Amino acid sequence: MKTTPLKGMKDFLPSETALRDYVQNSILSVYKQSGFVRISTPIIEDMENLDKSEGGDNLNLIFKIMKRGDKLEKALLGEQVHEKHLADMGLRYDLTLPLSRYYAANNDNLPTPFKVIQTDRVYRAERPQKGRMREFVQCDIDIIGDKSSNAETELIDVTARALLKIGFNNLTIIINDRRILKSMLVNFGFEENSLESVSITFDKLDKIGADGVKSELLQKNMPESAIDKLCEFLNSGDFSLKNVSTLLREEDQEIYNSLKQIIANVTKIADNTYKIEYSPRLVRGQGYYTGAVFEVTSPEFSGAIGGGGRYDNMVGKFLNKDIPAVGFSIGFERIINILQEKNFAVPHSAKSVALLYSANEDFAAVLKKATELRGSYEVNVLQAAKKVGKQIDRLANDGYFGVCFSEKFPEVKIINGEENE
Amino acid sequence: MKTTPLKGMKDFLPSETALRDYVQNSILSVYKQSGFVRISTPIIEDMENLDKSEGGDNLNLIFKIMKRGDKLEKALLGEQVHEKHLADMGLRYDLTLPLSRYYAANNDNLPTPFKVIQTDRVYRAERPQKGRMREFVQCDIDIIGDKSSNAETELIDVTARALLKIGFNNLTIIINDRRILKSMLVNFGFEENSLESVSITFDKLDKIGADGVKSELLQKNMPESAIDKLCEFLNSGDFSLKNVSTLLREEDQEIYNSLKQIIANVTKIADNTYKIEYSPRLVRGQGYYTGAVFEVTSPEFSGAIGGGGRYDNMVGKFLNKDIPAVGFSIGFERIINILQEKNFAVPHSAKSVALLYSANEDFAAVLKKATELRGSYEVNVLQAAKKVGKQIDRLANDGYFGVCFSEKFPEVKIINGEENE
Repeated sequence: MKTTPLKGMKDFLPSETALRDYVQNSILSVYKQSGFVRISTPIIEDMENLDKSEGGDNLNLIFKIMKRGDKLEKALLGEQVHEKHLADMGLRYDLTLPLSRYYAANNDNLPTPFKVIQTDRVYRAERPQKGRMREFVQCDIDIIGDKSSNAETELIDVTARALLKIGFNNLTIIINDRRILKSMLVNFGFEENSLESVSITFDKLDKIGADGVKSELLQKNMPESAIDKLCEFLNSGDFSLKNVSTLLREEDQEIYNSLKQIIANVTKIADNTYKIEYSPRLVRGQGYYTGAVFEVTSPEFSGAIGGGGRYDNMVGKFLNKDIPAVGFSIGFERIINILQEKNFAVPHSAKSVALLYSANEDFAAVLKKATELRGSYEVNVLQAAKKVGKQIDRLANDGYFGVCFSEKFPEVKIINGEENE
Repeated sequence: MKTTPLKGMKDFLPSETALRDYVQNSILSVYKQSGFVRISTPIIEDMENLDKSEGGDNLNLIFKIMKRGDKLEKALLGEQVHEKHLADMGLRYDLTLPLSRYYAANNDNLPTPFKVIQTDRVYRAERPQKGRMREFVQCDIDIIGDKSSNAETELIDVTARALLKIGFNNLTIIINDRRILKSMLVNFGFEENSLESVSITFDKLDKIGADGVKSELLQKNMPESAIDKLCEFLNSGDFSLKNVSTLLREEDQEIYNSLKQIIANVTKIADNTYKIEYSPRLVRGQGYYTGAVFEVTSPEFSGAIGGGGRYDNMVGKFLNKDIPAVGFSIGFERIINILQEKNFAVPHSAKSVALLYSANEDFAAVLKKATELRGSYEVNVLQAAKKVGKQIDRLANDGYFGVCFSEKFPEVKIINGEENE
């Protein structure tokens, strides 16, 4: 029988789990302190809902759950058996689609605006590579029901404070607005219905450079004059919001003002504990974003450790009316990796003591002694080894604060004062 | 698009999630206080491992994940397409098989004995009915690597204390040993290889009575003299361990002594805060149990709220050597249901305050005020409604401790003193 976990999935050792629990609880405490409430939804969702969720590439990465019993047999008897006949449920690839469904189902029992926390597992059948797992945890906060840009401001502030709390001191929030990107591209002369395709190429700017963007857009048969204007902008080097605002359609100046307001407010609140910067290059993959999009980056590591944006149409699809929504997701696994690389040590919450007993002792008395000690310590009851000196060394090495023998030396003897004090 | 969760799965409202978090954290704190450490394993396991896991009926309830891409296409081109060709992964139905695999993979990095906590989701494609979910949480503790009956004693004590902590005051642990049941049945004259089948019938005693057991065993063509002896025992009404010990094979007296020892020790430690009782009728479904089996019951509710036992062969299957193991699982969902029926109120961990602001206020200043207040309160930043009196009533109703207006009345005004004090 195979002992290793499946490809792209991980077993977590006790020390790793302690780190994960510590980080999750730290993030949760900031979220709760900020008036957000936690919910939970199933890991399995209806396949139709997942398929219609505009999740971009993620839709190709869904783990599907096979139909069972009669349903499966019937599907297998079909003339042309296709994957879509065999599965009607799938594992969620993010927490946004489930939240949208949840809000639609439960909004009668939820406050407006609904400020919500989700920290939970999601699944993507990625080709495994460093830092890409097939099962991983996301920490999301969302505000549903607030169309004002205060929602973006608040989410950015709360997320940044959560990351500060776990020691990320050198953060920059990158922000853009899908509508600004769109307005600029339309102004350059790209067709409305080609914007998604242009955005996908534009998103690769970091990887392929301005020339790469140009040649890919030419390959895609985009209008040359539009490409030229885009390249002129790219080559100007002035990617400031001010400059971009001059490239927008007249009617889109309000979007510019709103984005400027978010940046100004966040800058004030951040008070130099973190930064916020506009970038016209930020696109983000998901099709469901309708307005502001943002990511958290740092010069200390490559790539983003969190991201999100406004998705005003997704919840409405379930309710047949418009419901504004914004979300910010922390890449939990990425954060854990960074902390592990830094050899981050989880603060001890309690001192642990090993209570050693010998085989012929009255075990009920041993456990009673343990219960007493548990008033002050975490107590692990262990049978004394023959070579008890070695055993104590190992316990000290494992971080135990003290040891005691239930019969012979009932006082706790400190074996590892430094690590615990 | 469908808004309800899939059959047998649940969305949890904020108040439900708060209860679940509170109960889980309470249980975890007792487990950790007792020297157990938490681990985490993937929800998805290899289908072959699951199939070989002796999970009894649960094996028929596995959600299988469909193969993807080329693998699936190849499987669909087979001459006889069968469900087993289409899926090579499945969702775990319990936490014991994953733990066994985990221990085999990681034992070099784990202490002996390994005292481990798992609280996590499991999946069973049950026919949905009251209290039976398809996605649910189990809270398990296990001790791997201790063959002495102290392991059983400790697991029972720790589990009972966890349940006491969340207010379950009237508990009885029911205990049996699979080997005692087996010894008694062999002594009655049942064939060794029919014991599983006899046990399954015997397990139904509560539902079908002694006559039902008799007729089902007759139907199964078991030897009549053995059935008569079993029925004599059932009709004697003396199900005490003492009486059962007289029905055992000579060589099995040691098992009797060990069980007696567990009961004596637990009785002493429990000190009347909970009870332990022997029942020859306790079988439990899983095929992997090899020794003691136990359940937690109470006159306050029907059925068990937890159970477990010794499974000395399971871990060894992965490692090709014998590794003793015992586990105790709390039925988390059952406990939550019982607490909800009792209208259990989650103790407030912090006072929450709503900070109300008006649309034309400087939002950066509002959030700075919120940050200040968060030194003492959980603070939700909300736009003031037009009918602010109604809004405050609603907030008081939702359990908010106080309200304040960032500009006009910067002091916190208590709106709900009773509920929070």
